[in-house]
Amino acid sequence: MLAEIITIGDEILIGQIVDTNSAWIAAQLNQIGIRVKQISSVSDDREHILTALAEAKGRADIILITGGLGPTKDDITKKTIADYFGVKMLENKDALENVTRIFARYNRPLLEVNRLQAQVPENCEIILNKNGTAPGMWFNADGKIYISMPGVPHEMMYMMEDGVLPKLKSSLKLPVIIHKTILTVGEGESFLAERIADIEDSLPPDIKLAYLPKLGQVRLRLSGYGDDEVLLKEKIAGFAARIVERVGDVVAAEEDIPVEKVILNLMTERGVTLSVAESCTGGYISHLFTQHPGSSKVFFGGTVSYSNSLKESILGVSEQTIGQFGAVSGETVEEMVKGALLNFKSDYAIAVTGIAGPDGGTPEKPVGTVWIAVANVNKTSVKKLTFGNKRQQNIERSAISALNMLITLLRESGK
Amino acid sequence: MLAEIITIGDEILIGQIVDTNSAWIAAQLNQIGIRVKQISSVSDDREHILTALAEAKGRADIILITGGLGPTKDDITKKTIADYFGVKMLENKDALENVTRIFARYNRPLLEVNRLQAQVPENCEIILNKNGTAPGMWFNADGKIYISMPGVPHEMMYMMEDGVLPKLKSSLKLPVIIHKTILTVGEGESFLAERIADIEDSLPPDIKLAYLPKLGQVRLRLSGYGDDEVLLKEKIAGFAARIVERVGDVVAAEEDIPVEKVILNLMTERGVTLSVAESCTGGYISHLFTQHPGSSKVFFGGTVSYSNSLKESILGVSEQTIGQFGAVSGETVEEMVKGALLNFKSDYAIAVTGIAGPDGGTPEKPVGTVWIAVANVNKTSVKKLTFGNKRQQNIERSAISALNMLITLLRESGK
Repeated sequence: MLAEIITIGDEILIGQIVDTNSAWIAAQLNQIGIRVKQISSVSDDREHILTALAEAKGRADIILITGGLGPTKDDITKKTIADYFGVKMLENKDALENVTRIFARYNRPLLEVNRLQAQVPENCEIILNKNGTAPGMWFNADGKIYISMPGVPHEMMYMMEDGVLPKLKSSLKLPVIIHKTILTVGEGESFLAERIADIEDSLPPDIKLAYLPKLGQVRLRLSGYGDDEVLLKEKIAGFAARIVERVGDVVAAEEDIPVEKVILNLMTERGVTLSVAESCTGGYISHLFTQHPGSSKVFFGGTVSYSNSLKESILGVSEQTIGQFGAVSGETVEEMVKGALLNFKSDYAIAVTGIAGPDGGTPEKPVGTVWIAVANVNKTSVKKLTFGNKRQQNIERSAISALNMLITLLRESGK
Repeated sequence: MLAEIITIGDEILIGQIVDTNSAWIAAQLNQIGIRVKQISSVSDDREHILTALAEAKGRADIILITGGLGPTKDDITKKTIADYFGVKMLENKDALENVTRIFARYNRPLLEVNRLQAQVPENCEIILNKNGTAPGMWFNADGKIYISMPGVPHEMMYMMEDGVLPKLKSSLKLPVIIHKTILTVGEGESFLAERIADIEDSLPPDIKLAYLPKLGQVRLRLSGYGDDEVLLKEKIAGFAARIVERVGDVVAAEEDIPVEKVILNLMTERGVTLSVAESCTGGYISHLFTQHPGSSKVFFGGTVSYSNSLKESILGVSEQTIGQFGAVSGETVEEMVKGALLNFKSDYAIAVTGIAGPDGGTPEKPVGTVWIAVANVNKTSVKKLTFGNKRQQNIERSAISALNMLITLLRESGK
């Protein structure tokens, strides 16, 4: 069963927003055995939407459309879909009730443009939008399913979970797609490929292996397609086990989770705790940990000590150290990590200080110079890294490098 | 001049990664007057890539392709492009030198798979990849330009900035696209539309207005298309000025920047400083500020006080307050914000405490309950908000609500 996702909105095509909806939708569909064949982002333009719908119909059985359902004049999706099917618009009672209810809740008057949101093509079933005024729409036509949803992520997500996914599951006989991901840290893509070449060569045609590299990490993803879930899982598990046995020294996790989640899981299991002292990463490492449910069991928090005075007052870095070696130095980062351990009373700590850029570099310490320390009571590891001059990347790469260092320290300190 | 972006990779279609490349590329192209007509994400599949190239050729003059250039077997883009043009593969001297140089730098042996990375279709010019082993490729064929780049974001970005954009500018006569964005905070999309309906109705056909709503903010984007840059800018500036005059009470910025950047700009201008005390947002607010160059002028940092003991030790929240009212309460958030002002010695502070979920709620304080405070020496504003049960959304919405509250406090405290 193949799907196509069409995201509609000029804001995507001029790069004003990143389309995060498609990845989320694709992951949800995969879990119920629907493969996404293509994702197409098109403009708020009638002809272009009509062409995209026709092309998608040629490729896919299910066409999911997001965006262009707002109350304003640039939102033309609904009218265009009605034209595509050659049908009229009708006011839908349930959709109108929903709009009325939402405006009543916020004590705001119902404008004519809002009332128009209850108008839908006459051949659709509406999908209730509990979090917004634009209804979702489900169409069965010519043996294909078309689903139109708002582009606002949380409205779309609730609608998918509450309405669309259950309805797809109950109305279709779906095949099985199994993915199994192995996360490795500390070995390059081509070296990994060399080490497991014979395993890769022995894969049957219904199982594919993909390499997904990112900053010192490589995800190995095995994907299987078929009808027999038990058999497929067994086959994939067999190949995964062979790969893990072969490259176990660099395997961080046998599931598709980010490195910080691997750390949280491992530390929860061991009953140890973590704090951070972030300078150039500016809260990003804390954010990576705290986005995960249950992180508070392990993660105490810490400080974003952007200014030198906070490095001194909260972490106890000595004024003399900063004066003599600079805020971006091995000496300072070591005092930061020790200060975090001591003051925040955690078992492990991470500290990062650097020049994220684009300004603030010197010939001796160019932009992209970053010092990272990880420590527990027995051991402190300090590393200097030199990245480029792109601020966002320097923040991200510093954070991931720190996480990779912590994984290594946890490995060394384990059983 | 129209472009199409084709991103290749199964990892996008199964939702394992979000395609951030396309938005970045689209924004860069727009700046030099190239409009993106469509973004298509397709699988690592020969037939599918060939179809996507043929469809894109029918829609666009410039086709930018990312992904599928790695050294492993799942990467088939290069070979497929050669088939598309019906040409042979050749080893390119410059590309081979680049691969050799990179492996020498890391003292690693050059494997045969890496040497193969220097093979390119014979009809291309290579675009040097300073940050990786896969060369970019530029093709001129049938009056169209095809550009193939790696999918790794920082490799692609350097390649675009260093090679692709300058070459596009020098080899094409490009039209003008002007965007002008007005950021509003605190008024809903449909109410804004109602207030400026007559201005919108008077827009000429070459100028479009779009509404981009997001969590209490609406971006109004005017876009103009034409040949005469000066005239177009003038026309758009005229309409923008009329809109700003009309809804000035809710305008936060007259450029397309995020709210935290508006805050940084305003605070830099006024010479005042900021610190934060984050609990449930877990570093996300700090990250929002510190991702911007120059934020250190305004932003001192602060604490991610995830544990109660850090709320007490770093912020000086009293044990009694937490005991009596709970960590998630108006009383605690007020002590947090005052503690931040006092201990971090900033002019303004933000504090947030809440239950991000999905666990940890009680009947009295369900998941999604968030208390936010913003303060300066004269005034403290405290607000309770109730969101849903999605952790990531609760973090993001709490952060944006806090920023919106700080904008309001800055407005009240200004001139």
